[in-house]
Amino acid sequence: MATEITAQELNTEAFINEKVKEIREAVGEDTAINALSGGVDSSVVTMLGHRALGNRLRTIFVENGIMREGEAEQVVGFFRELGVTVEVVDARDEFFAAMAGITDPEEKREAVTQTFYRDVFGRLVKESQAKCLLQGTILTDIDETVAGIKRQHNVFEQLGIDPQTTFGYRILEPLIQLRKDGVRKVGEALGLQTELFKRIPFPGPALAARVIGEVTRERIAVVRKANMIVEKKLKDSGAFQYMAILHEDRVTGMRNGKRDFGQQIEVRCWDSVDARTATPTRLSFETLEAIADEIIHEIPGVVSVTYNIATKPPSTIEAI
Amino acid sequence: MATEITAQELNTEAFINEKVKEIREAVGEDTAINALSGGVDSSVVTMLGHRALGNRLRTIFVENGIMREGEAEQVVGFFRELGVTVEVVDARDEFFAAMAGITDPEEKREAVTQTFYRDVFGRLVKESQAKCLLQGTILTDIDETVAGIKRQHNVFEQLGIDPQTTFGYRILEPLIQLRKDGVRKVGEALGLQTELFKRIPFPGPALAARVIGEVTRERIAVVRKANMIVEKKLKDSGAFQYMAILHEDRVTGMRNGKRDFGQQIEVRCWDSVDARTATPTRLSFETLEAIADEIIHEIPGVVSVTYNIATKPPSTIEAI
Repeated sequence: MATEITAQELNTEAFINEKVKEIREAVGEDTAINALSGGVDSSVVTMLGHRALGNRLRTIFVENGIMREGEAEQVVGFFRELGVTVEVVDARDEFFAAMAGITDPEEKREAVTQTFYRDVFGRLVKESQAKCLLQGTILTDIDETVAGIKRQHNVFEQLGIDPQTTFGYRILEPLIQLRKDGVRKVGEALGLQTELFKRIPFPGPALAARVIGEVTRERIAVVRKANMIVEKKLKDSGAFQYMAILHEDRVTGMRNGKRDFGQQIEVRCWDSVDARTATPTRLSFETLEAIADEIIHEIPGVVSVTYNIATKPPSTIEAI
Repeated sequence: MATEITAQELNTEAFINEKVKEIREAVGEDTAINALSGGVDSSVVTMLGHRALGNRLRTIFVENGIMREGEAEQVVGFFRELGVTVEVVDARDEFFAAMAGITDPEEKREAVTQTFYRDVFGRLVKESQAKCLLQGTILTDIDETVAGIKRQHNVFEQLGIDPQTTFGYRILEPLIQLRKDGVRKVGEALGLQTELFKRIPFPGPALAARVIGEVTRERIAVVRKANMIVEKKLKDSGAFQYMAILHEDRVTGMRNGKRDFGQQIEVRCWDSVDARTATPTRLSFETLEAIADEIIHEIPGVVSVTYNIATKPPSTIEAI
């Protein structure tokens, strides 16, 4: 088990030098590969890896079809400014095929995880002949995996795969001793843009975690639009995280004086320090009603909008 | 088509005398029957009928299993105070059997309607040998039935049944020229208790309309408890109507540090004058959070609570 380094005791310069050295030693004269999601963890790993290996690190951004509007372009743009080339791989067809017909939240996460690691990224890693895979696992991920709350971490192990014997490469986890605040400090020291840190967290299953029920291209388009509206309206709210969730339940609405069973969007906006506990942000009703109106008017078929009023725990930040 | 009598032009004394006379003429020396739901319309019809016919009107309260806690006892008590005996018929088994396996909202309403009119009340009417059936249809019901928004009205006609030829009785609708405000004026003039008027509206399908998905005894028990909490917390809010809705969608929650897919309750509270348009009441977050906390702590399995922020239209007051 990794020893924790708290943000307070963290010496970023020393930490970066040590990790760069470790990565260089592990990779030797070979090449490494990593997947960039645009989150803070994988962004920091990308920068550490590039500082250690330069062009011998191949960084992949997988377009899975369940990202926010313009996500790939934005992330690639951030790294281009820092002189880092990110390769975008379009795997939308594979992801939607894998999610078709699945409504159970665990199976949905499993399909996204399997498609990413086993199919898409697994294939890329094998083809790349890289000897090391860099991952952005942090200490909190380990805790939550142990508690059974998350399961996107240590995935190869969880899938029963030993990468060294199966694929012939090692996994390096340079951030394993840090928590989120420590990772941010390292990211700043590595010159990552503040815009990248300000992006609200957006975990692995992405928009698929914001669709209750089956994930289809059409339903992702609805929830993507709703998330754009919520993010636009709440970008100056100072909240920790905010999102829109498409429900599967149908509720009665009226269109042109006629009954119409329509869709419902749930809005969540959280106040939190570290995501372990969170309370609903006390937004004004002017803001809440403006969000609801825009969602209803801009997205055909949506007749109802709700706002989360439960705390975490027992709720969680995301809905599934 | 009935001519509207507005609340302003309504002379309650003259109206009551006229309707009492009409009911007496229609029923003659026979008996009549009516179903009392405890809503304002059926309560006013009950009082008019009893003024006209005394004990020759048999008033039935059907316990369908989808009422609020203590509903039957409360309504029977109100009328006992006014010297009117109300017969309670326990038909819970029939209603739950009819709703089993049904998830479509229209089919659910249909099952409640059919069970009430065709099976339970239909049987009672036939057995009673009454010659007239008194119904509390008001003008707004007609409008909404024509618009396709509601369909609890003119039910025999809608079910393709001519009561006169099928069952041998006539239907009397003494309130057909009035809207809600007129009905309330008549009710006051007939001595109905103000508590009865203050009861928030609770339409036909009752708690079944507050369960998205299949209606079972267990799910009704959950939504009944949630409605009790909402009604208790909001009884002094001055709002037009408020309710709790049990969703079918499952969302992630945490219990004892472990992931737990739980149930979600949606709270709606409306400001409205006539229910034709409505806006969400701007409750304080203290109130909203207190409601959410009590629901989550008192009802096992509920991990999430939302508050409606959409207006009617395009939303409707109830969810299904």
